[in-house]
Amino acid sequence: MAELIDLRSDTVTKPTPGMRRAMAEAEVGDDVYVEDPTVRALEERTAELFGHEAALFVPSGTMGNQIGMRLVCEPGQEILCDADAHVVTYEMGAAAAIFGISTRTVVSSGGRLDAQQLIDQVRPQDNWHLTATAAIAVENSHNRGGGLVQPRDELQRLWDWSREAGVAVHLDGARIWNASISSGIDLATYGRLADTASVCFSKGLGTPVGSVLVASAERIATARLWRKRLGGGMRQVGVLAAACTYALDHNLARLAEDHEHAQVLAKRLGVDPSSVETNMVVLDDVAAPMLAEAAKARGVLVSQVSARKIRLVTHLDVDRAAIDRAADVLAELLHR
Amino acid sequence: MAELIDLRSDTVTKPTPGMRRAMAEAEVGDDVYVEDPTVRALEERTAELFGHEAALFVPSGTMGNQIGMRLVCEPGQEILCDADAHVVTYEMGAAAAIFGISTRTVVSSGGRLDAQQLIDQVRPQDNWHLTATAAIAVENSHNRGGGLVQPRDELQRLWDWSREAGVAVHLDGARIWNASISSGIDLATYGRLADTASVCFSKGLGTPVGSVLVASAERIATARLWRKRLGGGMRQVGVLAAACTYALDHNLARLAEDHEHAQVLAKRLGVDPSSVETNMVVLDDVAAPMLAEAAKARGVLVSQVSARKIRLVTHLDVDRAAIDRAADVLAELLHR
Amino acid sequence: MAELIDLRSDTVTKPTPGMRRAMAEAEVGDDVYVEDPTVRALEERTAELFGHEAALFVPSGTMGNQIGMRLVCEPGQEILCDADAHVVTYEMGAAAAIFGISTRTVVSSGGRLDAQQLIDQVRPQDNWHLTATAAIAVENSHNRGGGLVQPRDELQRLWDWSREAGVAVHLDGARIWNASISSGIDLATYGRLADTASVCFSKGLGTPVGSVLVASAERIATARLWRKRLGGGMRQVGVLAAACTYALDHNLARLAEDHEHAQVLAKRLGVDPSSVETNMVVLDDVAAPMLAEAAKARGVLVSQVSARKIRLVTHLDVDRAAIDRAADVLAELLHR
Amino acid sequence: MAELIDLRSDTVTKPTPGMRRAMAEAEVGDDVYVEDPTVRALEERTAELFGHEAALFVPSGTMGNQIGMRLVCEPGQEILCDADAHVVTYEMGAAAAIFGISTRTVVSSGGRLDAQQLIDQVRPQDNWHLTATAAIAVENSHNRGGGLVQPRDELQRLWDWSREAGVAVHLDGARIWNASISSGIDLATYGRLADTASVCFSKGLGTPVGSVLVASAERIATARLWRKRLGGGMRQVGVLAAACTYALDHNLARLAEDHEHAQVLAKRLGVDPSSVETNMVVLDDVAAPMLAEAAKARGVLVSQVSARKIRLVTHLDVDRAAIDRAADVLAELLHR
Repeated sequence: MAELIDLRSDTVTKPTPGMRRAMAEAEVGDDVYVEDPTVRALEERTAELFGHEAALFVPSGTMGNQIGMRLVCEPGQEILCDADAHVVTYEMGAAAAIFGISTRTVVSSGGRLDAQQLIDQVRPQDNWHLTATAAIAVENSHNRGGGLVQPRDELQRLWDWSREAGVAVHLDGARIWNASISSGIDLATYGRLADTASVCFSKGLGTPVGSVLVASAERIATARLWRKRLGGGMRQVGVLAAACTYALDHNLARLAEDHEHAQVLAKRLGVDPSSVETNMVVLDDVAAPMLAEAAKARGVLVSQVSARKIRLVTHLDVDRAAIDRAADVLAELLHR
Repeated sequence: MAELIDLRSDTVTKPTPGMRRAMAEAEVGDDVYVEDPTVRALEERTAELFGHEAALFVPSGTMGNQIGMRLVCEPGQEILCDADAHVVTYEMGAAAAIFGISTRTVVSSGGRLDAQQLIDQVRPQDNWHLTATAAIAVENSHNRGGGLVQPRDELQRLWDWSREAGVAVHLDGARIWNASISSGIDLATYGRLADTASVCFSKGLGTPVGSVLVASAERIATARLWRKRLGGGMRQVGVLAAACTYALDHNLARLAEDHEHAQVLAKRLGVDPSSVETNMVVLDDVAAPMLAEAAKARGVLVSQVSARKIRLVTHLDVDRAAIDRAADVLAELLHR
Repeated sequence: MAELIDLRSDTVTKPTPGMRRAMAEAEVGDDVYVEDPTVRALEERTAELFGHEAALFVPSGTMGNQIGMRLVCEPGQEILCDADAHVVTYEMGAAAAIFGISTRTVVSSGGRLDAQQLIDQVRPQDNWHLTATAAIAVENSHNRGGGLVQPRDELQRLWDWSREAGVAVHLDGARIWNASISSGIDLATYGRLADTASVCFSKGLGTPVGSVLVASAERIATARLWRKRLGGGMRQVGVLAAACTYALDHNLARLAEDHEHAQVLAKRLGVDPSSVETNMVVLDDVAAPMLAEAAKARGVLVSQVSARKIRLVTHLDVDRAAIDRAADVLAELLHR
Repeated sequence: MAELIDLRSDTVTKPTPGMRRAMAEAEVGDDVYVEDPTVRALEERTAELFGHEAALFVPSGTMGNQIGMRLVCEPGQEILCDADAHVVTYEMGAAAAIFGISTRTVVSSGGRLDAQQLIDQVRPQDNWHLTATAAIAVENSHNRGGGLVQPRDELQRLWDWSREAGVAVHLDGARIWNASISSGIDLATYGRLADTASVCFSKGLGTPVGSVLVASAERIATARLWRKRLGGGMRQVGVLAAACTYALDHNLARLAEDHEHAQVLAKRLGVDPSSVETNMVVLDDVAAPMLAEAAKARGVLVSQVSARKIRLVTHLDVDRAAIDRAADVLAELLHR
């Protein structure tokens, strides 16, 4: 039987021989003492890529998002975001649990940012009754929104308003690379529309582990304390950072290929290709559990988002031939 | 100039001479040592009224709600409620800030409970990605919903489902008295449709201070620890509890009068009387700041809920004559 | 049988007729709206008494201490204090539980402040490994220290050092009144040696309920938010504040009498009178459970601090005749 | 100039070629989906080594300790430990900050466990005034205690008592390997004297990153939720786990060599060799800053524990020749 084609998520990618070699040869030091040269280089490069002063390597996107939000929101205050945002859906209630931060949500149109909708919900910071809104979190590309890319003008509108209002903006940029490749807007432009941003190397970029938080130098100094407190301080972690540097060098441009593969899947499976903006394809109105099981039996792994929704994610471990095979399997199952 | 007519809230009521006398004559003891007979009597009476095993006197509805929710939800888990619920709007993010509990909301139709809508949002308790839903909070009557009374069958539906699902129900019953008087459904019936309930004596019942949390005996024992930890343990607090007992004896049935007064206001001010279920009247689509200011200049205090919405609350310090005067003032301002 | 003589604590005092009358006649308003004149007056008077800008009425000394400490310490930082301090012994782990603040202790000589001992334990605030020390808490008089009064020069030494070091000082002044009466040092002097101070009216001053937190105006504004969040916001709470004002007028100077009573007990019970500085007498090396039980059977209630230690507390509900009776009972039991 | 000899800590070790090769060749999967075979194998092996049912890979000893303590202590309760324990000194107040757990300490004799001393401090779990003691944390070997090995009989006494008392025991076993090699007591014996234990591979065992928490299967399931919530969930983290497995195979027995090296240093530097139980040597009563600086200028890095105390740690990146060179340098500096 052929190998499994795993379309559940782009987190499942395994490091390539080249990436493993880069890891094995990485120069390392004790990063808790801030002495790992490979980590420092990655942090500096990432900060620069996103137009920020400083950066911090963290073990996961969850830690990047949570510390990023903590940097701009105090316990007792709240962060606004979309009801389907990763930070309120898949991060185990961390904002409340570990930081005492409330999250409040708006129901957007499929995850697409509507700046005004969020702005309308903001509560003042000096009221003795209301929970003060300290920050707004934006996810780009949007995971549960099927990989959608946030509109440039809405990001700008939110940012401009936020400067006046004294409300911060956090970017959950786990897949900002996909957004950038898809929109042609460079990373620094996205980075400059946020006070804090968390970006992940372990999704489409294909590393085993690794996220980086970018912000001002002062905020990153505070983030370092929180990373230690949360247990995210690691020692010779340059072995992981080396994979991230490798990924920036080799796997960024190729995301376009994943996006093409998503288009292929969309066309073959009757999904409107214009709804597919990056590397995710959502099958709506399907019997999700049955479809997932049947696909698995035929060697194709997919992700059930809900009882009636399946998500397919393309990534560097699924080449064009595998995409075609997966499309064959799924098309047949859908047309039965 | 005549005295101010304060329709901002039913929290503004001042103790009557009779109530003050009851307070002055209260038999007291050290309630931190559980030795205040007046407090114990109030707790026992309230527990019985709501059909629960035990009760705990607390200094505010916020403390009653927050401890009540903590009793049925662990740090890291979440509580679902209406987006306009008091517990997520006016309690300063306490659930997250002091207990590490996430709150997640649904946008209901004006605060009215739709059990299925909440049930659809519940997340499982054993998933490594999702925040587990431990409880659902219901507010009855609903403050920001304009004092609406929750439908009996929806409460029942939620309760029946919750028993199967292993999800708890917390009742924010700050104004459950108004709901009961309006619907004719007794307090015990409401109480038995919740695992924990917080009820307030300092709203329509007219006491200066005082709320009571009801639950099982085991949960109340835990609540006592949390009350002490939050700084809610007080000493000879029977002086406050005596007012609550007095209110149960004298001010409960008379809430019907407040409800009639709200009807009077509604009719005079062009509000659909059927939308007024208890002691609140909401004026929609008005220039709220201007109207509030003009009314104040004429001796009538009202509450701005938003830029276009005014709330009027009837209570025992506003008699029929005052209601008529307030209606005159507001009607004139509205018709200009 | 004669009435019980309750020497367990000065928290057990019951309001006198005069105090009850003051409460019954109190002018009140909605204190959540900052409209209760009696509360405002008490806050202003207390702030002035202690030489601070502002003050906030809170339901308990625990809430006063905890919010006070939160004002000068961020989550993740630590507060240093004596191992027997009330804030780490009797406040249910609140600093950690509700604020995320670590407490760290030194073992002092019976609770007596040794400024250098604390200073030596302070950790820097910019270290990536150590928990930063943000504040030091001092208790005066010291409850578990048997009511001892902190040495003036040690308080001054700590304060002077703290200004240089950028470390804050919180005063747990639950019984600062006793310290002041005993030492002759005025309240403002004590108040000015702390950034935040919590003082209680429900101990020796004899009110049913009530504590006040004093600090700068800016900090008190923040404290108001936290009080609401913890559920300490109450409505017509002037009924309680009136008792506190009454106590300042009538019960402050008379604490000297309680201190004399403590001397009487000490002399009668073989305790070194010089070790009794305020209103507490500690019996060491006694069979505490047996002694407490036997005394109770004879109408005298005492407090077991440990298996070998009994505490007696004098207060306004125990007059000289009762002191003599209690001394008789205890002396007889001790000499058997 | 010769290469630096780094005796600051055993955390500074760099992976050897063999370890790097094991990492580069590791079979991996998505560990957030519990699909990484190398991680699973390490977890199973570690659980078995310590005689527990289950285990969880975490990014740091801090996360292992903190989650371990959370598994046996609820928010609001307290954990007792030595005042010099790593968990209260070097973990940034995490227990309070992220979990709401109080830590309380005793001053032991240089870190050495005295079971009775801790037991005497335990507070009951059902008291309305006192913070309940839920667990005791023990560190073995003890870092700030200069690598001392906890007495077997004291560990047993604590454990036996704890079973009766319903108080849990957490083992901070960051360097339990050193304790075991030094004492000859096997890992399972140590493991069975604790409810939860965190062990590190990135100290003497020489891996870049990696700790493992062991406990019952039920507790580890809960730990997995907390690891995700804290941001410790990583993807193809088998690349790190492979180093840990390699270390168990190759670097465990050789710790005896580090211990011999510590003896060499002790003898050369006038430290009582019997006070050196594992891989640490403490120089007392030295001018620590000056000595550290002078040693660094001569190519030897040491750690300042305090103004008068220097710590030297031996590890696999410092061979006998380097030990001799370091001893020459330090002896000369000490004898000046």
